[in-house]
Amino acid sequence: MRILFLGDIVGHPGKQAVEAWMPKLIKRYRPDITIANAENVAPNGRGITERLAEALFDAEVDLLTMGNHTFDQRDSLSFIGSDRRVVRPANFPPGAPGQGYTLCKVGQEQIAVVNLLGRALMGDYDDPFREADRILAEVGTQTSHIFVDMHAETTSEKAAMAYHLAGRVSAVVGTHTHVQTADERILPGGTAFLTDVGMCGPYDSIIGMTKEGVLHKFRTQLPTRFEVAQGEGQLHGVVIDTNERGRAVSIERISITPDRPFDSW
Amino acid sequence: MRILFLGDIVGHPGKQAVEAWMPKLIKRYRPDITIANAENVAPNGRGITERLAEALFDAEVDLLTMGNHTFDQRDSLSFIGSDRRVVRPANFPPGAPGQGYTLCKVGQEQIAVVNLLGRALMGDYDDPFREADRILAEVGTQTSHIFVDMHAETTSEKAAMAYHLAGRVSAVVGTHTHVQTADERILPGGTAFLTDVGMCGPYDSIIGMTKEGVLHKFRTQLPTRFEVAQGEGQLHGVVIDTNERGRAVSIERISITPDRPFDSW
Amino acid sequence: MRILFLGDIVGHPGKQAVEAWMPKLIKRYRPDITIANAENVAPNGRGITERLAEALFDAEVDLLTMGNHTFDQRDSLSFIGSDRRVVRPANFPPGAPGQGYTLCKVGQEQIAVVNLLGRALMGDYDDPFREADRILAEVGTQTSHIFVDMHAETTSEKAAMAYHLAGRVSAVVGTHTHVQTADERILPGGTAFLTDVGMCGPYDSIIGMTKEGVLHKFRTQLPTRFEVAQGEGQLHGVVIDTNERGRAVSIERISITPDRPFDSW
Amino acid sequence: MRILFLGDIVGHPGKQAVEAWMPKLIKRYRPDITIANAENVAPNGRGITERLAEALFDAEVDLLTMGNHTFDQRDSLSFIGSDRRVVRPANFPPGAPGQGYTLCKVGQEQIAVVNLLGRALMGDYDDPFREADRILAEVGTQTSHIFVDMHAETTSEKAAMAYHLAGRVSAVVGTHTHVQTADERILPGGTAFLTDVGMCGPYDSIIGMTKEGVLHKFRTQLPTRFEVAQGEGQLHGVVIDTNERGRAVSIERISITPDRPFDSW
Ligand SMILES: [Fe+2]
Ligand SMILES: [Fe+2]
Ligand SMILES: [Fe+2]
Ligand SMILES: [Fe+2]
Ligand SMILES: [Fe+2]
Ligand SMILES: [Fe+2]
Ligand SMILES: [Fe+2]
Ligand SMILES: [Fe+2]
Repeated sequence: MRILFLGDIVGHPGKQAVEAWMPKLIKRYRPDITIANAENVAPNGRGITERLAEALFDAEVDLLTMGNHTFDQRDSLSFIGSDRRVVRPANFPPGAPGQGYTLCKVGQEQIAVVNLLGRALMGDYDDPFREADRILAEVGTQTSHIFVDMHAETTSEKAAMAYHLAGRVSAVVGTHTHVQTADERILPGGTAFLTDVGMCGPYDSIIGMTKEGVLHKFRTQLPTRFEVAQGEGQLHGVVIDTNERGRAVSIERISITPDRPFDSW
Repeated sequence: MRILFLGDIVGHPGKQAVEAWMPKLIKRYRPDITIANAENVAPNGRGITERLAEALFDAEVDLLTMGNHTFDQRDSLSFIGSDRRVVRPANFPPGAPGQGYTLCKVGQEQIAVVNLLGRALMGDYDDPFREADRILAEVGTQTSHIFVDMHAETTSEKAAMAYHLAGRVSAVVGTHTHVQTADERILPGGTAFLTDVGMCGPYDSIIGMTKEGVLHKFRTQLPTRFEVAQGEGQLHGVVIDTNERGRAVSIERISITPDRPFDSW
Repeated sequence: MRILFLGDIVGHPGKQAVEAWMPKLIKRYRPDITIANAENVAPNGRGITERLAEALFDAEVDLLTMGNHTFDQRDSLSFIGSDRRVVRPANFPPGAPGQGYTLCKVGQEQIAVVNLLGRALMGDYDDPFREADRILAEVGTQTSHIFVDMHAETTSEKAAMAYHLAGRVSAVVGTHTHVQTADERILPGGTAFLTDVGMCGPYDSIIGMTKEGVLHKFRTQLPTRFEVAQGEGQLHGVVIDTNERGRAVSIERISITPDRPFDSW
Repeated sequence: MRILFLGDIVGHPGKQAVEAWMPKLIKRYRPDITIANAENVAPNGRGITERLAEALFDAEVDLLTMGNHTFDQRDSLSFIGSDRRVVRPANFPPGAPGQGYTLCKVGQEQIAVVNLLGRALMGDYDDPFREADRILAEVGTQTSHIFVDMHAETTSEKAAMAYHLAGRVSAVVGTHTHVQTADERILPGGTAFLTDVGMCGPYDSIIGMTKEGVLHKFRTQLPTRFEVAQGEGQLHGVVIDTNERGRAVSIERISITPDRPFDSW
C-alpha cells in the first residue's frame, strides 16, 4: 500500500498549495490513500471548518488528521464529531467530540489512521503512549496497516513514540513544528519514521505566519495577533510504501517550494 | 569563504564520529574554517571539559559553540572563560564566564562566530534579538562574515532570528533539537538559514540518549538517569559558501548515517 | 508613611469591591498613598481601559500597577503611555509604552512605585533582578521610599526578589496568583514582604473567573472562553508603615470576604 | 473527626520542627489523625528515605503524603511500594510503586487519604480530576471521611480540584509552593479548602533552600546546586474538624515561625 501524507495545511495559501499540487502528486506517486494534517487550515491558521474540510476532500484528500488547534473554530465541535473522515488526537480526555482513529477501506485492505498529541512542552493531555497501546489493541485484530500522526513539539517525544510503536505500526510521522526534518528512516520491525513532515502553506513566512507578526511578538513581548502570510506556497509531505503485512518498505520525503519547484524534482 | 559547521556533538560516540569523518570532510569540502557545537560532548551528554575541547581542536575543529548545557560540567566554568576558541551563548546575564562571540582570522579575512540561546520553551535568558543587535554593532565594523549558531527549541524563534538578521549576517543555523531539518535556504540579503543542523552522535538512540532511558521517562514519569547511547555514529553538518562581502551564496546539508554512509554521497 | 496596596482588581465585581470598601479602608487606615494592581479590571478580566483607570482614580486609588495582562486591551497601548499614574512592568523590552516606575509626591516626601514581572513559568521578559538594580540606581538619589509590586507566578522568584532588594526598598509585595498568602514579614534591613497580596474580585469563583469555565478547561482540555464571575465581592490588600528613612516598620494583611466582612474586623 | 495536616517537610530543619512542635500541637489540638507531606524531607530537599519516614512516624505522624519529588531518592522506590502509611500521588501512570490513597482506621471510623499531582506548569501526569473521581468511586462505599492533598503549582488548578470535589470529600488542601495561603474556607457541601498549607522547614530561606543558592540561580542562570538552609525552623499546617457524615465544620491554619512562636498563639 502506498500512503501519501501531507503536513499541517496553513490557511488559504496552504489549501491552495494542496489544491494545486495534489493532482500532480497523485499522478506521479499514485498513492492508495491520501491523508493530510488540517489543524491550521482556517483563515487565521487555527483549526478547521466543515466547509474547509469539504474543500480538502474535494481536492482528493481522503482523510484529515488534526492537532492542538483541533477545536479552535467554534463550529468544529459538532462537525468533527460526525465526520468519520476526520481524526482528532486520540488522547483528549474521554468525551471530546470526534474520534482518535479511523478505519478506512483501501482496495481489499484496511488502514487505521491514528492521531496523537505530545505533552512535552505542549499541554495536559492524556498519556499518548498508553493511548496508542489501547488503540492498537482495538485495531490490531482488524488490520496491520496502521498510520500514526504524532503531533508534538519535541523531537524526543516523537522519536520515543516511534520506538514505542516500532514493529507494531506501519509508520509514525510527526507534525506540529511546520518544518520538515531530514531524518526519514525505517526502524527495526518495519516502521517508517520521520520526526516532522513540515507544512503546506506560505513560503515567505515564519511557520506560515507573517514574519512581521512573529518578529513583533519576539521583539516586544506585546500581545500580537498572528496572521497567516500570503504569497507563493510550499508543500511538504511523505510517501510511504508498505508490504502486505503492513510493514514499511520505503519512506520518501516530498518538499515543494519556490526554490525547489515540482517540475525540478 | 567556506564554512563547515557540525551540530551538537553528543558523548563519546559523537566525538568519535567527528574524529573519524572530519579528515574526509575536510578533504572533500576544503573548508576555510570548521566550527562545531559541543554542548553535549561530555560522557553523560551534558556540557564539556577542557580535555574534550582539546580533543576536538586536535580533530581539526577550529571553534566550538555551546548551548543550554554550556556550564553543566563543574570544571568548565574556568576553562570556558579563558579559551578564545570556545563561544558560549551571548545572552547569558553579564558576568557569565566566557564570551558570546569570537573573531577568528581566516586567511586574509576575519569571521565573527556568535552563539545565542532561544527562550521560547527553554529558559530565562537575556533577549537574544537585542543581544544579536548589540554584537553586530560591535563586530560589524570589523568584518562582514558573521556566523550565528542559534541554539533554540522552537522552529519559530529560530526562523525569527534568521529574519531578524537577514541581510546583516552570513548565516543563521539552528541547533538543540538534535534532528536535522530539510529547509536550508538563502534569505533575501544573502543570509543562509537552516532551522536545525542536527547532531553528531549515536544513531541507534533518541536524540543521542539510550532509547530505553527516554522511553522509561515518557512511560513512567519517574526520575530517570539518561545515558548517552552506544553503537554506530551519525554526523550532521552544513557547508556554507560566502562571497567577499560576507553574503551566503550556497548552503548544503551534510548527513552521514549508517543508512547513508559517507562514501555513498 | 502609610501605604495601602490592593491586589489584582478583577472585572466589574473587583471594581465594585474597591469602590465600596475604599472609603471605609481610608477612614480606618488613613493611608498616605493608595495603590492597586489593575491588570485584570477589564470586563473580561484581561487588561485595562482608560475609562476604567479613571473610575479607579475616582475611587481614591492614587496609582495603578499592572502585570502580564497590561496591554491586552487594544486601546491601552496609548493611554498607558501617557498617564503618569499607571506603572507597567519595568522589564518589558525597551520601547514598550508607559513607564516601569513612577515617582509620586506624598506630603513632604516622595515614593517610587515599581512594577516588575517574574519570568519563571511566566514569559520571556527582561531580567527583573537587573532591572530592579537599574531603577534603584535612578531613584535612589531621589527617595528612600520605594514600593515594589513583583507580579510573578512562583513563590521562589517573588521571595528571591524580596531578598535581592532587602534593605534597599521599603516593600516587595507579590501579585498574580490572586490568592493571598499568610507569610507577611519584615526582612532584615527593613523591607516588608508578602508573597502574594491576593485579589479584589468575585468571591464565588476560581481566581475571579467562573468556576464552570475553569473546570471545563481542566476537565476537557477544550478551548474555553473564561469569564469573570459575578456575585459578592472580596478584597485583599496590605498596609505598610515606613519610617522617615523609608524602612518598613509594620506590614498588615487585609482580607475582606463574605465570610469575613469588613465590620467584623 | 479532627485532622491535623502539616505541609511539605523540608530537610533536617523541617524534620526537627515537626519533632519539636508535634507534641505541643497534639496536646493543644488533640487530633484524631496526623498527616504530613514529606516529599522534601531528604537532606537535599528532594524525596524521602525509609529511615526518615520511620523518624516521622516516631514523631507521631500517622500518614505521609508526597508530591513531584516522591521518587527522587533511589531507595524510595521499594519502600514506598511496601509501606501502607505512605501515599504517593495517585495520578502517576499505572505501575508506579506505592499507592495513591490509603484507608486508615480512626477510632470507630475510617479516613481515606488521597494524594494528587497538578499538571499545570508542573509535569505530564495522568488527569488528576478523573483520577479523583475513580478513587471516590472506590472508597466512597467505605467511608465519607476523605482528605485530599492536591500537590500543585497554580492556584487555579488547586481551586478547580476543590470545586470538582466539593460536597464529595471532607477537605482539599494544596501543597507544593511552600508558602501558606490565607484563604481557608468551607465550600458548599462541607468541603474544607486551603490553596496551600505552606511548609515545615528553615525560616531564613527561600522555600526552604538557601537564599544564596536561589538568588545565584535567578541572577546568573548558571547551573546551581540548591541546598536546604539551616537555622531556626517554621511549621505550617491546618486543623480540620469533620462531622459524623464526613463534612468539614471548621478549618484553622497553623503558622509557627520565629516571629510568631508557638507560645504566642
Ligand atoms: Fe500544532
Ligand atoms: Fe500546526
Ligand atoms: Fe541544547
Ligand atoms: Fe544539544
Ligand atoms: Fe497576572
Ligand atoms: Fe492578575
Ligand atoms: Fe513539590
Ligand atoms: Fe515541596
